[in-house]
Amino acid sequence: MTDTFEIHKKNTGKLEIVPTVQVNTKEDLSNIYTPNVGKICMVIKDNPDAVREYTIAGKMVAVISDGSAVLGFGNIGAKAALPVMEGKCVIFKEFAGLNAFPICLDTQDTEEIIKIVKAISVNFAAINLEDISAPRCFEIEKRLSDELPIPIIHDDQHGTAIVTLAALMGAIKIKNKKLKVKSKNLKVVITGAGAAGNAITRLIKASELPVSDIKLFDSKGLVSTDRTDLDKYKMEMAQLTGQTKTMSIQEGLVGADIFVGVSAPNSLTEDMIRSMNKDPIVFAMANPTPEIMPDLAKVAGAMIVATGRSDFDNQINNALAYPGVFKGLLAAKITKATIEIKLATAKAIYEYNLPNLTANNLLPSILDKNVPEMIAATIVTSVK
Amino acid sequence: MTDTFEIHKKNTGKLEIVPTVQVNTKEDLSNIYTPNVGKICMVIKDNPDAVREYTIAGKMVAVISDGSAVLGFGNIGAKAALPVMEGKCVIFKEFAGLNAFPICLDTQDTEEIIKIVKAISVNFAAINLEDISAPRCFEIEKRLSDELPIPIIHDDQHGTAIVTLAALMGAIKIKNKKLKVKSKNLKVVITGAGAAGNAITRLIKASELPVSDIKLFDSKGLVSTDRTDLDKYKMEMAQLTGQTKTMSIQEGLVGADIFVGVSAPNSLTEDMIRSMNKDPIVFAMANPTPEIMPDLAKVAGAMIVATGRSDFDNQINNALAYPGVFKGLLAAKITKATIEIKLATAKAIYEYNLPNLTANNLLPSILDKNVPEMIAATIVTSVK
Repeated sequence: MTDTFEIHKKNTGKLEIVPTVQVNTKEDLSNIYTPNVGKICMVIKDNPDAVREYTIAGKMVAVISDGSAVLGFGNIGAKAALPVMEGKCVIFKEFAGLNAFPICLDTQDTEEIIKIVKAISVNFAAINLEDISAPRCFEIEKRLSDELPIPIIHDDQHGTAIVTLAALMGAIKIKNKKLKVKSKNLKVVITGAGAAGNAITRLIKASELPVSDIKLFDSKGLVSTDRTDLDKYKMEMAQLTGQTKTMSIQEGLVGADIFVGVSAPNSLTEDMIRSMNKDPIVFAMANPTPEIMPDLAKVAGAMIVATGRSDFDNQINNALAYPGVFKGLLAAKITKATIEIKLATAKAIYEYNLPNLTANNLLPSILDKNVPEMIAATIVTSVK
Repeated sequence: MTDTFEIHKKNTGKLEIVPTVQVNTKEDLSNIYTPNVGKICMVIKDNPDAVREYTIAGKMVAVISDGSAVLGFGNIGAKAALPVMEGKCVIFKEFAGLNAFPICLDTQDTEEIIKIVKAISVNFAAINLEDISAPRCFEIEKRLSDELPIPIIHDDQHGTAIVTLAALMGAIKIKNKKLKVKSKNLKVVITGAGAAGNAITRLIKASELPVSDIKLFDSKGLVSTDRTDLDKYKMEMAQLTGQTKTMSIQEGLVGADIFVGVSAPNSLTEDMIRSMNKDPIVFAMANPTPEIMPDLAKVAGAMIVATGRSDFDNQINNALAYPGVFKGLLAAKITKATIEIKLATAKAIYEYNLPNLTANNLLPSILDKNVPEMIAATIVTSVK
């Protein structure tokens, strides 16, 4: 048992910068620094795209956060977010062989963040936005994606949505098999209309899941078109899900088949599960404390339960997706992570796990280092 | 003979990010990413300075440029500057064991640069500003140095000035020995009133060199208080050097003992050297083409010649100083590189080379990997 403080202190953080070249002679020095390096500078000056060929800008991923929505802690600021961003960079290298550098920004102003990321984007081949609070994260991701020629992915949205969809595909497969009937017209309730809830809703809606109704709830109730307090992103969600009348989560859950929580700890009761259709699927993904603990959910009748935690079965964690997604996008030189790519990735994760699929094993292990390679290959193939 | 293009292409640039921790178990994942990493986040949230203890912010140097004054090329922009900044980072690791990451900024607006560097400074223990044109570099360095709690060094100024001063100390020592008389009242002419010229002037002025007169020239003539076209930085230089009357470089060189050029190629003629005092010292440091080629300078009577080039004797290159300077500042947790530290560093380089000092060997080899350690030890001792 190694102490997390010791791990972080030993080498002052978790990353180091290592040259891929040696400097032993004056010729080495000339080639990498001056004057010979000037030849590379001049080639890039004349052809700016060559920066992707001769510098780290061709391979380096930036993991960028403003520290406004970190883990389950909320707005803890740029400095306190850095250990998490470093951790993501460790995973990028360990699981996908990608080089990633963490940048925490000491500002939470949307326009400033956009300006800064654009200015530093020169150095990077892709950008992983991380732990930026909604609704700012939507604006920031969209603007950067529109204005920069490299992939921009807010992983709290899309990584989470991809892994959730893969797990749902597995859960429905198990349910069908067990009940010996093909599910159709499934009713889904999603709680939490932030970054993850928004992306999960969009991805389920775009998927081939046999879903006839999606209800997305925020802390005030159903996200529906009759509400007057919604920002434009939530109003889009109300329109996308076709919900027109306010109701409470309790009301929404009656007769639902699937619960997906990305909201608040202990916000789902056993009674609420009992009000759902028979054999419900319950994904209680609030971190670190789920909407309901798995044992309680099962007592209340849940057929399949998943959480975000590593100490329970069925951990839904975006780390299963993002290393492979970035690896695939970079390998295929894709600059936009489209909805088709996200759907293909979810399907690939689901199919990869089919031989081992059980109610307690909806997903491949997060430690399976073959998964990123498999995802990357799927993405590369998807655009051929 | 390895081709510089091949070197840069092989691994897409010259740096990689390597984790200092392994991820093989769920416990590893918890410690470095989530949920255990949250303990580190919370410690930093409560005590922001702990970020220097548990994250890369305690060791990482940023090498930041806007690409406005790169090598001898001038304003070639952020992308074309990146190979040079990567090269500096390679040298940081290879020569001083320091971790450094290059950030090229796609803006040349002074206020924007200051704002961006402040916002990203969270991730770094020190900042090396590089290849930013004068006079913007002065404002940017001063503001950041005043407003951030970490060392900020514009290396084109201070690295160059330190190495130049060390070389001048050696050159004067040789001259004294050869002429069997102790130099005094030396007259110095410096051409080029940009980043390097400004810093060299300040450092010589603050040093114990036996100098009675310093004349700093820009492309229009002597930087003197009677000029009406000077910006505030050049006017400060005019006041510092006590020059009150405009004159040409030709006039200024008559009777001078030392020429230090950080200006334009081929701007010093043999006749100009002949107009100097007997046995002059000529540092022709314009890159890549010096103010005068060493063989011509010697024909014209120069006793000692130095340039910025690696293919001649006496290369004056800031790479001799900066790895050790940053290593020392970080080791001693010094947040400002004072003039005393710069003087002590120059003296240490000079003294280190004394056993090997000759007219053709004014400085230690740039490849001598003991130099950074020696400089760092000097800086650490200087503040004890």
